[in-house]
Amino acid sequence: MSKKIITIGEVMMRLSTQGHERFVQASSYEAVFGGSEANVSICLANWDQETYHVTAFPGHDIGKAATRYLRQTGVNTDFVYFSEGRMGLYFLENGSMQRSSKIIYDRFDSAFSNFDGKDINWDLVFDGADWFHWTGITPALSQNAADMTLKALKVANAKGLTISGDINYRRNLWQYGKGPLDVMPELIRYTHVLVAGKSDFENCMDITLEDWADACHQAKRDYPQIKFITKTKRESISASHNRLKGVLWNGEEILFSNIYEMTHIVDRVGGGDAFIAGLIYGLMHLSDQEAIEFATASSVLKHSIKGDANFVSLEEVHDLVKGENVGKLLR
Amino acid sequence: MSKKIITIGEVMMRLSTQGHERFVQASSYEAVFGGSEANVSICLANWDQETYHVTAFPGHDIGKAATRYLRQTGVNTDFVYFSEGRMGLYFLENGSMQRSSKIIYDRFDSAFSNFDGKDINWDLVFDGADWFHWTGITPALSQNAADMTLKALKVANAKGLTISGDINYRRNLWQYGKGPLDVMPELIRYTHVLVAGKSDFENCMDITLEDWADACHQAKRDYPQIKFITKTKRESISASHNRLKGVLWNGEEILFSNIYEMTHIVDRVGGGDAFIAGLIYGLMHLSDQEAIEFATASSVLKHSIKGDANFVSLEEVHDLVKGENVGKLLR
Amino acid sequence: MSKKIITIGEVMMRLSTQGHERFVQASSYEAVFGGSEANVSICLANWDQETYHVTAFPGHDIGKAATRYLRQTGVNTDFVYFSEGRMGLYFLENGSMQRSSKIIYDRFDSAFSNFDGKDINWDLVFDGADWFHWTGITPALSQNAADMTLKALKVANAKGLTISGDINYRRNLWQYGKGPLDVMPELIRYTHVLVAGKSDFENCMDITLEDWADACHQAKRDYPQIKFITKTKRESISASHNRLKGVLWNGEEILFSNIYEMTHIVDRVGGGDAFIAGLIYGLMHLSDQEAIEFATASSVLKHSIKGDANFVSLEEVHDLVKGENVGKLLR
Amino acid sequence: MSKKIITIGEVMMRLSTQGHERFVQASSYEAVFGGSEANVSICLANWDQETYHVTAFPGHDIGKAATRYLRQTGVNTDFVYFSEGRMGLYFLENGSMQRSSKIIYDRFDSAFSNFDGKDINWDLVFDGADWFHWTGITPALSQNAADMTLKALKVANAKGLTISGDINYRRNLWQYGKGPLDVMPELIRYTHVLVAGKSDFENCMDITLEDWADACHQAKRDYPQIKFITKTKRESISASHNRLKGVLWNGEEILFSNIYEMTHIVDRVGGGDAFIAGLIYGLMHLSDQEAIEFATASSVLKHSIKGDANFVSLEEVHDLVKGENVGKLLR
Amino acid sequence: MSKKIITIGEVMMRLSTQGHERFVQASSYEAVFGGSEANVSICLANWDQETYHVTAFPGHDIGKAATRYLRQTGVNTDFVYFSEGRMGLYFLENGSMQRSSKIIYDRFDSAFSNFDGKDINWDLVFDGADWFHWTGITPALSQNAADMTLKALKVANAKGLTISGDINYRRNLWQYGKGPLDVMPELIRYTHVLVAGKSDFENCMDITLEDWADACHQAKRDYPQIKFITKTKRESISASHNRLKGVLWNGEEILFSNIYEMTHIVDRVGGGDAFIAGLIYGLMHLSDQEAIEFATASSVLKHSIKGDANFVSLEEVHDLVKGENVGKLLR
Amino acid sequence: MSKKIITIGEVMMRLSTQGHERFVQASSYEAVFGGSEANVSICLANWDQETYHVTAFPGHDIGKAATRYLRQTGVNTDFVYFSEGRMGLYFLENGSMQRSSKIIYDRFDSAFSNFDGKDINWDLVFDGADWFHWTGITPALSQNAADMTLKALKVANAKGLTISGDINYRRNLWQYGKGPLDVMPELIRYTHVLVAGKSDFENCMDITLEDWADACHQAKRDYPQIKFITKTKRESISASHNRLKGVLWNGEEILFSNIYEMTHIVDRVGGGDAFIAGLIYGLMHLSDQEAIEFATASSVLKHSIKGDANFVSLEEVHDLVKGENVGKLLR
Repeated sequence: MSKKIITIGEVMMRLSTQGHERFVQASSYEAVFGGSEANVSICLANWDQETYHVTAFPGHDIGKAATRYLRQTGVNTDFVYFSEGRMGLYFLENGSMQRSSKIIYDRFDSAFSNFDGKDINWDLVFDGADWFHWTGITPALSQNAADMTLKALKVANAKGLTISGDINYRRNLWQYGKGPLDVMPELIRYTHVLVAGKSDFENCMDITLEDWADACHQAKRDYPQIKFITKTKRESISASHNRLKGVLWNGEEILFSNIYEMTHIVDRVGGGDAFIAGLIYGLMHLSDQEAIEFATASSVLKHSIKGDANFVSLEEVHDLVKGENVGKLLR
Repeated sequence: MSKKIITIGEVMMRLSTQGHERFVQASSYEAVFGGSEANVSICLANWDQETYHVTAFPGHDIGKAATRYLRQTGVNTDFVYFSEGRMGLYFLENGSMQRSSKIIYDRFDSAFSNFDGKDINWDLVFDGADWFHWTGITPALSQNAADMTLKALKVANAKGLTISGDINYRRNLWQYGKGPLDVMPELIRYTHVLVAGKSDFENCMDITLEDWADACHQAKRDYPQIKFITKTKRESISASHNRLKGVLWNGEEILFSNIYEMTHIVDRVGGGDAFIAGLIYGLMHLSDQEAIEFATASSVLKHSIKGDANFVSLEEVHDLVKGENVGKLLR
Repeated sequence: MSKKIITIGEVMMRLSTQGHERFVQASSYEAVFGGSEANVSICLANWDQETYHVTAFPGHDIGKAATRYLRQTGVNTDFVYFSEGRMGLYFLENGSMQRSSKIIYDRFDSAFSNFDGKDINWDLVFDGADWFHWTGITPALSQNAADMTLKALKVANAKGLTISGDINYRRNLWQYGKGPLDVMPELIRYTHVLVAGKSDFENCMDITLEDWADACHQAKRDYPQIKFITKTKRESISASHNRLKGVLWNGEEILFSNIYEMTHIVDRVGGGDAFIAGLIYGLMHLSDQEAIEFATASSVLKHSIKGDANFVSLEEVHDLVKGENVGKLLR
Repeated sequence: MSKKIITIGEVMMRLSTQGHERFVQASSYEAVFGGSEANVSICLANWDQETYHVTAFPGHDIGKAATRYLRQTGVNTDFVYFSEGRMGLYFLENGSMQRSSKIIYDRFDSAFSNFDGKDINWDLVFDGADWFHWTGITPALSQNAADMTLKALKVANAKGLTISGDINYRRNLWQYGKGPLDVMPELIRYTHVLVAGKSDFENCMDITLEDWADACHQAKRDYPQIKFITKTKRESISASHNRLKGVLWNGEEILFSNIYEMTHIVDRVGGGDAFIAGLIYGLMHLSDQEAIEFATASSVLKHSIKGDANFVSLEEVHDLVKGENVGKLLR
Repeated sequence: MSKKIITIGEVMMRLSTQGHERFVQASSYEAVFGGSEANVSICLANWDQETYHVTAFPGHDIGKAATRYLRQTGVNTDFVYFSEGRMGLYFLENGSMQRSSKIIYDRFDSAFSNFDGKDINWDLVFDGADWFHWTGITPALSQNAADMTLKALKVANAKGLTISGDINYRRNLWQYGKGPLDVMPELIRYTHVLVAGKSDFENCMDITLEDWADACHQAKRDYPQIKFITKTKRESISASHNRLKGVLWNGEEILFSNIYEMTHIVDRVGGGDAFIAGLIYGLMHLSDQEAIEFATASSVLKHSIKGDANFVSLEEVHDLVKGENVGKLLR
Repeated sequence: MSKKIITIGEVMMRLSTQGHERFVQASSYEAVFGGSEANVSICLANWDQETYHVTAFPGHDIGKAATRYLRQTGVNTDFVYFSEGRMGLYFLENGSMQRSSKIIYDRFDSAFSNFDGKDINWDLVFDGADWFHWTGITPALSQNAADMTLKALKVANAKGLTISGDINYRRNLWQYGKGPLDVMPELIRYTHVLVAGKSDFENCMDITLEDWADACHQAKRDYPQIKFITKTKRESISASHNRLKGVLWNGEEILFSNIYEMTHIVDRVGGGDAFIAGLIYGLMHLSDQEAIEFATASSVLKHSIKGDANFVSLEEVHDLVKGENVGKLLR
């Protein structure tokens, strides 16, 4: 039942204030590591999938600590490289009630964004693999990272892997001279499962239809290899209380998950990555409807866990889908 | 107004992860001590009742720390013994939202379960006492523990104490060769106040009626010394939000407490023990209806307090029953 | 856009238990500093107003730490004095659910209450200033403190400052031989913006009308210099969930703010001070209706922040008033 | 082998900065309770002596926490009273290397110093007791405390207890209008075992001889009931490294303990109290020379333990005297 | 330069009090994992050796956390099994000055000691491996564990691996009915590098010569396959200050390392394992004299690191041997 | 007695592991702010000197926190600017025993190094000032920073300030295309008090004499405005134990301070800055010999304090020079 999945992307050190402290109050920071694509690999590794994350770290002790972190979670680190540059960082302030959470990114000039990946043997990386997942963050970082993504996509495609891409458009990135429309369309052309909302369609695919379903159809016309398009719908009653629903277009119809009230959020960073990991798992092992339910339940559980990563078992996700053992005291 | 109450049972070291951390994330554990029966004694000691807890610990420094803990809370430790065996432990992971809390028990071969209590002078233990409380956990641990419970019950009964028993059926215990139906009926025969729900009636008293009121009547027929049967009704909206109501059958009618919304649970372990302590207090000092209200309010407040024990004052419980000073800032 | 504001009052060391721990459980206390009037100055300093706080501390290292704290927050400490007496303290236990928060004050014989302020050059203090804020806590502490308040009010009035006073009646204070009606009326006579609820009107102004609007009219008749009277209406569903609304009488009509649900309160101490700071800012820079909205939003955000002080930006308050960026993850 | 020992004195809340933080750096404080005389009782309770501490606390939750602390350590709290006044406090900054440790006392107007002890049944307190220990701190606090000490001494003397007194002269106390020479001589007259150094002799007994042995002889002439005089000699190489030796004059000769190098001091507060507890134990159960060795070893071990109290076993002290199991890893 | 090394043994959860707290003071415990043989693997993995640890854990989340810990440190966990039984634990109290450190073991009935290893494919385990390391702790736990050790030794020997054994005699183990002389000699017969001191020779090899060199010769006569015997000499000035020297008998002569003063010990648990790891590395990659220097320097550095494991780089050990970069601030 | 002192330089966020944890073990980091020149200002501010620090931070919340930190310590922040770029960081691992401390710098592209200071009104900055202090770190960061330093030096010189410069040569800096000999000589030409050791003379002044006294004479010949050259001599017995001596050449003779054993170092970062602050204070207020004693004592005390900054009073430094109150418990 285990599949082999490859992810690529930057992993940052995450420094978050204690509890709900504001940045100006902080006298210490909790440190873990995270990055959108690695979060997907970690989540899948928890479910006994064989995952490899491709990335680069600086060669110093904190780069080693990051590698150790990935290894701890069960992700294979054979394709973690040490190269020139600094450790990408982000600082997180965890909101509460009406007060929003805040992230200060500090990721420019990182080892990963400087990394050219020239020595990666992509045939070896993708050997025997079932799935490749990338996001729009990587090509937004640097020309090197965009080139590497394209190269990886070509080999993965040639070897017949299913490919998912989380468009994840972020205006603050894309500072190396190219814009998303210069780069993303070619990458999307190799992608079968797309995570995309309205802003992603507009900024990275030049599709500006108001209706998401129409946009999906348009995307399929422009990129006929696409099989699934997916997103979550999140309503923020407050920083502590969100409402979440998963949406999956399978080329024919739009499937919805149950709606979940998340009333005492512990940490919402990585909620989207847990959704994607759930969807990848679901599309490999379950029916379409089950997949979107599984993905959404995975995302919900992530909101109860500190850090970027979703440390939940298959059983816990399945139970939540079924409404069993929810919010109990399990002895 | 102070009564003398005796409890008996194992006290474990409780090791809980920080905040809402999962076991796989933990790099430290908070340590307190707790056990269902001792929790009852501690709660009652807070209300200036004179309580004695009978138990056994290993003779090493952690056994001493456990004794010190009981003494700190005001429980009399004259009948705490040091004997062979390990310290019983349990590990707790505190859930949030839809994610359940989890307990990993590690209590086999403990000093208490190995303890035969041969040297206990039960006449002395129960001298001048008003009430004896036991639970179905103790006879489930070992033949020694079951024998000791029976012996204690006989003496307590002979000396005219009121006796309460929390059936508390747990399938994972009962591993020493006997089943609950081999042991529990004889013990229940000495008990005047029973804490029992459907599963307890079925597994420990062989009463399988669907309706709880009918089961109470049946129990009274089988065990005519019973005066009260009680339970709580808990609805788990999530791990952070429960709804609670107390139920008391006094041989004539079923009394209900107010229903409480517990919307930001800090720690639900020990909630049942706080209920029982409240009921014991109530049946000694209040009317039946007041008793079930007092018991339920005691339980509600426990959910706002970290650890197994319910550190609240009489005034705080009475105020909650009256709806006064609820959720304020008291200067 | 920056105004100069002067506040006067005692600053205490606040020792609060960790998380939701009860006093009897505490093995450590978090320490910050706070006091109603200083909290107002700190809040306004965050919004780039030029604030000076007048107070006195003991000359030892903890008095120095208190001064450093004020300086850190941007409050000018040129008029912080070191004098005889102890550091005022308060101990805080943070409630949860139905369990109330508790404060144990330990502020008698403090350096501030012993301080006679004889050497203060009030002309210098108020030089170029726009606003002076005092509260009814100061004259309740000691004759010295009451005299100093009166002296300050006279100079501030003579120099044409706008003066706000938070009546803030507390029965446990007023232990030096005078009652509020002996002292407060004369002080209120110099005050243009009054923070007063029913209990304040009764105890400090001898106005016992049931209707708050009527009481405002009566107050205006008794103290014709009054321009605004304000208060908040707080409904405590639980210690974790309050409902808040701001109310402002501007001499003509009563204006109301939006109502806010505060469902996951982090720390409610200082919520009133954040309201007052917001109102002072609003009355200096905004319309009356905008002012009461700004004040209430400022107070709401405070409830999400640990400590006495409200570390929020102008933008965050304005955003909440507009319903923008509420409870999001801002990258 | 167990004796009954009574101590009397104030117990303060001790608030110490974390690690070696300075007061101006502290954002939290560790809280325990301590006081010279209670520290003696706690230390003796660890050695299975039956100890009672007589004191008074404010009736609020922190006073209750202090009582719980004493009870936890095994000290009997039957004679702990709740009375008017605040909780005495002291703030501790733990030095390192050449930097000294600092204490800021905040104990005036405490419940204990206001306590008149009129209702204490001293006959009951001393019933069956072997030893009474007091210090010069108590009569230095207030007339009430001095009177109560004298009354206790008279009863203890009449009932034939052995009485020890730690002169412990502190210039900063004695602020209620009397000086040590007004009060102490009468109290010393009831005392058999005196802890006194040069400054104590001078300030409390008006004996100004340079040589300590001569001073002991003079003391014996002035107070013929004295049997032992004792002190420690401490050399402070740095805050982290002290050298310690115990000295005991038994009326005939001066006995010295081994000299100990304490090279990595964890917490030196309470080192003198651990010495006194050790001496009391020693004089009750051992020879004179053994007593001074036991006392000094007890004090040395205290320096390795955080807090005021000396949590060591009899075996650990005996082992250190014998040089066995010193600084090992005991499995 | 990388070799493949196999270790086998129990890994326990280590729960240590904070700082220098005593067990009776602890309100939380730091949790890591450790075991003598796994510590060796972890240390070697830090030096880029390919290490596999063979062990068994309970299948619950704490067993998973233990596996994650090994994986994090770079040890290969392909041969980690989940089986029936509890998690072995040990509690650690870190001494200071004259006060010893204390360990309370709680490891009976663990998953590892119950594990029969019947399904282990030892040919696969040792495939391509260079070295196998075991200790006398494993055969002391249970018959199952002793049998498994013997089986592993036979296969390792047949495949030509170098085998090291740390005799590590502990009287408190060996509770399953056999004594060390019943079991150890046969295991030692397969071992080329022996870690053994006087007590080990006596209790496990029945060699009682006073002189360690003579004992080595005798051992060689009894077990002619032995090539090296080694030990450390440790002098405990205090728990904070030890003196350490390594000793290696290579069949011809006794080689000594430099003597090291360890004056501010952070954590001495695992010091011996770091020595053995260093020796294994040294004997594979260096001369005999260099090996004993490397091993001792490795052990010294371990004493500066919290936890069981020695997280130091090759360069750090080599630098210490050369006396370079010792105790500096490296920028 | 208060003088006005100006410093200029980058202030970084310092993220240090807890206790003696290694980077690979860290799950949280303690955060303070520090930089060589700001450390000097902070130290002098503690001694009631009027200090201004000139620097630039990014405009986000962490830049604000850094400003707040400076303000808290008493440094005037009128000349703190917000500009483009990131926050400079450094990660610190605190060594122990033979294990060295390690710093990982992450300061490239910081707001300060990008800052051109074009808008600074240097006449205003230096108005009424007595002293200007700079270090060789600033011109090593960027051409902008080097230019700004030169400009500041010219104005300070023209206004007659005494100027001190800490050469502080660091090979890892100087990455913007210029070397120290291209830049430093011109800056040194404006400097009266030089902090320089052998490596500084060689790399920044091209003076390669073996003897430090000879080098001082040579420096005086090349830069005749120099009045004092100073350095410390540090011997690292281990990371926990250093030996320190101050050396001052006053143009005529070499003066030495007492030698200090620092046996339990808490934090040695900033030790050199505390020395310089002490020397600046000394040269302004004391004799030459007293100055070097004061400077060295200041540095010694810094080693007992966590963080970059030296929070000690004038009295504490004077006391250490006199050997009074050293390593005591001050009540």
